[in-house]
Amino acid sequence: MQQLRIPGPTPCPPEVLKAIGRQMINHRGKEFAQIMRDITPKLQQVFQTKNDVFILTGSGTGGMEAAVVNTLSPGDKVLAASCGNFGDRFAEIAEIFGAEVKRLNFEWGKPVDPDAVRQALKADSGIKAVLVTQNETSTGVTNDLKSITAVAKEFDKLILVDAISGLGSIDLPVDAWHCDVVITASQKGWMVPPGLAMVSVSEKAWQAYAKAKMPRYYWDFKLAKDYLEKGQTPATPAVSVFFGLAVALDMMLAEGLSKVFARHAKIAGIARNGAKSMGLSILPEEKYASNTVSAIKASDKLNVSKLLKLLEDEHGVVLAGGQGILSGKIFRIGHLGWVTEKDIKEVMDAIAEVIPQASS
Amino acid sequence: MQQLRIPGPTPCPPEVLKAIGRQMINHRGKEFAQIMRDITPKLQQVFQTKNDVFILTGSGTGGMEAAVVNTLSPGDKVLAASCGNFGDRFAEIAEIFGAEVKRLNFEWGKPVDPDAVRQALKADSGIKAVLVTQNETSTGVTNDLKSITAVAKEFDKLILVDAISGLGSIDLPVDAWHCDVVITASQKGWMVPPGLAMVSVSEKAWQAYAKAKMPRYYWDFKLAKDYLEKGQTPATPAVSVFFGLAVALDMMLAEGLSKVFARHAKIAGIARNGAKSMGLSILPEEKYASNTVSAIKASDKLNVSKLLKLLEDEHGVVLAGGQGILSGKIFRIGHLGWVTEKDIKEVMDAIAEVIPQASS
Repeated sequence: MQQLRIPGPTPCPPEVLKAIGRQMINHRGKEFAQIMRDITPKLQQVFQTKNDVFILTGSGTGGMEAAVVNTLSPGDKVLAASCGNFGDRFAEIAEIFGAEVKRLNFEWGKPVDPDAVRQALKADSGIKAVLVTQNETSTGVTNDLKSITAVAKEFDKLILVDAISGLGSIDLPVDAWHCDVVITASQKGWMVPPGLAMVSVSEKAWQAYAKAKMPRYYWDFKLAKDYLEKGQTPATPAVSVFFGLAVALDMMLAEGLSKVFARHAKIAGIARNGAKSMGLSILPEEKYASNTVSAIKASDKLNVSKLLKLLEDEHGVVLAGGQGILSGKIFRIGHLGWVTEKDIKEVMDAIAEVIPQASS
Repeated sequence: MQQLRIPGPTPCPPEVLKAIGRQMINHRGKEFAQIMRDITPKLQQVFQTKNDVFILTGSGTGGMEAAVVNTLSPGDKVLAASCGNFGDRFAEIAEIFGAEVKRLNFEWGKPVDPDAVRQALKADSGIKAVLVTQNETSTGVTNDLKSITAVAKEFDKLILVDAISGLGSIDLPVDAWHCDVVITASQKGWMVPPGLAMVSVSEKAWQAYAKAKMPRYYWDFKLAKDYLEKGQTPATPAVSVFFGLAVALDMMLAEGLSKVFARHAKIAGIARNGAKSMGLSILPEEKYASNTVSAIKASDKLNVSKLLKLLEDEHGVVLAGGQGILSGKIFRIGHLGWVTEKDIKEVMDAIAEVIPQASS
């Protein structure tokens, strides 16, 4: 069997795959409504929120677009704190839809500095919202979201959080940290195939919605809310992925949220220590190293594409390379969702075995 | 087994469901690229086009939004020819994104009149694009798309076609009829669960793209094209649905397009004749009655919600009611995709059996 250890899609448990392969049902019928009414409060539990939670048919990027277009107007000043590829994407989406984006960029591999966010907000009182990434998949950095959201709260700003690759695997208490819109996606820690983005929407975000003038139809939160009351979605949902999500949520809640987080932390530690024992180093400082994706620096001698090819061809281990400026300089191990200590040990053993061949 | 006969999601063949339940793979790896390169020309075959065809993760409505935002600018004058709920939706999307929409509405149950389109285009040379529905799911009307697109061509207008519930089941030669953007969705005649919208983009649509200023990121056609060259999609795709689509396309092409169309025509005839033999009438004139969805008028004595409930509870037959102004006045049978003569005969027998109980 393949060890698919990229930062999503993640492997799905057999129970989830069985559910995914179920025959179609009426998406406007009683059974589907029951699924919506069953899933939604469970999602709220994992989001640790009383806010509305909507399930949108699309990729996580669609969820990011939804967060932007439902809360902002063209011309709104926005602070985009970015420390990697996905932070940049969030900024780009806001810019394309007409926001005036002030970019606060951090070196790839470093976290977003909450103090720098404070300085930026202090320097410009016209900023309406802060965009930030909880877990930057491109660099394996988990930001200190608690401090960042506290700063945004201090200045009473709207805060939109891309938590796509972290939520459900790394603690993110949405209400306690006053997050206004939080986005995640099914193919990450949720152990479900891609096709759904899940977003939470706070009261403050609804107030922003009421004034927001960016155009929206497919991603419209109000439509999602109106239909959810009927146990439906505005357009035809990805029914199979809903079937899978229902099963996966039960598995997550049966394990218990704190145990899910602890498992991710432990497994990430095995990955990091394994890499270090091979003489490799982790891109971010240990304190900010992500529990869902490890970005490992390649030594000068290590050929990353050769490493990835050998791992896949000879060990069935599928990892990811670096994105953008980190291409060829790092490789990334996804250890989120359906993953055990044994899985990650196998992966690390395979890496240790092929490194000599992949080095010059 | 349930007879799910709504106009989508449609039932999926067991081969498709088996594929849907496959374990995840790397969406940026060789195998997925192979699937993209295998599926895309097969989709072009069914679309009967040499145009680009993209597969977007989202509902059909997302594909409609994509068609609008990739080809138009705010302020562009657009003629929206509508004869039902989905035609109205297309107009609404264009309006929300800032187009100046001239609505050409036809009574629900009647088709779009190509001559009226000609008059409207003649009356206002400023119109840039025509929006039209091939097969109006809400009323069971198939428009004379050949004539409508010929009119648009006569005036050299861009034509955007919502073919969501018709393409793949009803003949629509995209190139021969000069359609610029054509949208369909996986859960219709394609026999696959919902989650993917498929769109074709003509050379003329690309010229429009180059000037179009509506904001777009998630639905951006250029991004889709750039990634398709690598056998990828810009954001993480609904991998499971791709697995299913690959299998379903092979089934469709093995049956042969003209046979698929003929099967739909024959089965639709059985539905219409069956209804007439019960003393019921079809909403649209026979000439425009759709081969994928039959809208059947309820007599004054027939209680539609009672009919639908009895069919589902006692016969496992799931049909759809009317939408909007047709709610309670019609019921709809979806007969598209994975459907046989035997299936539709069972459905008609069940209807005949419950009608007395559902009538007052």
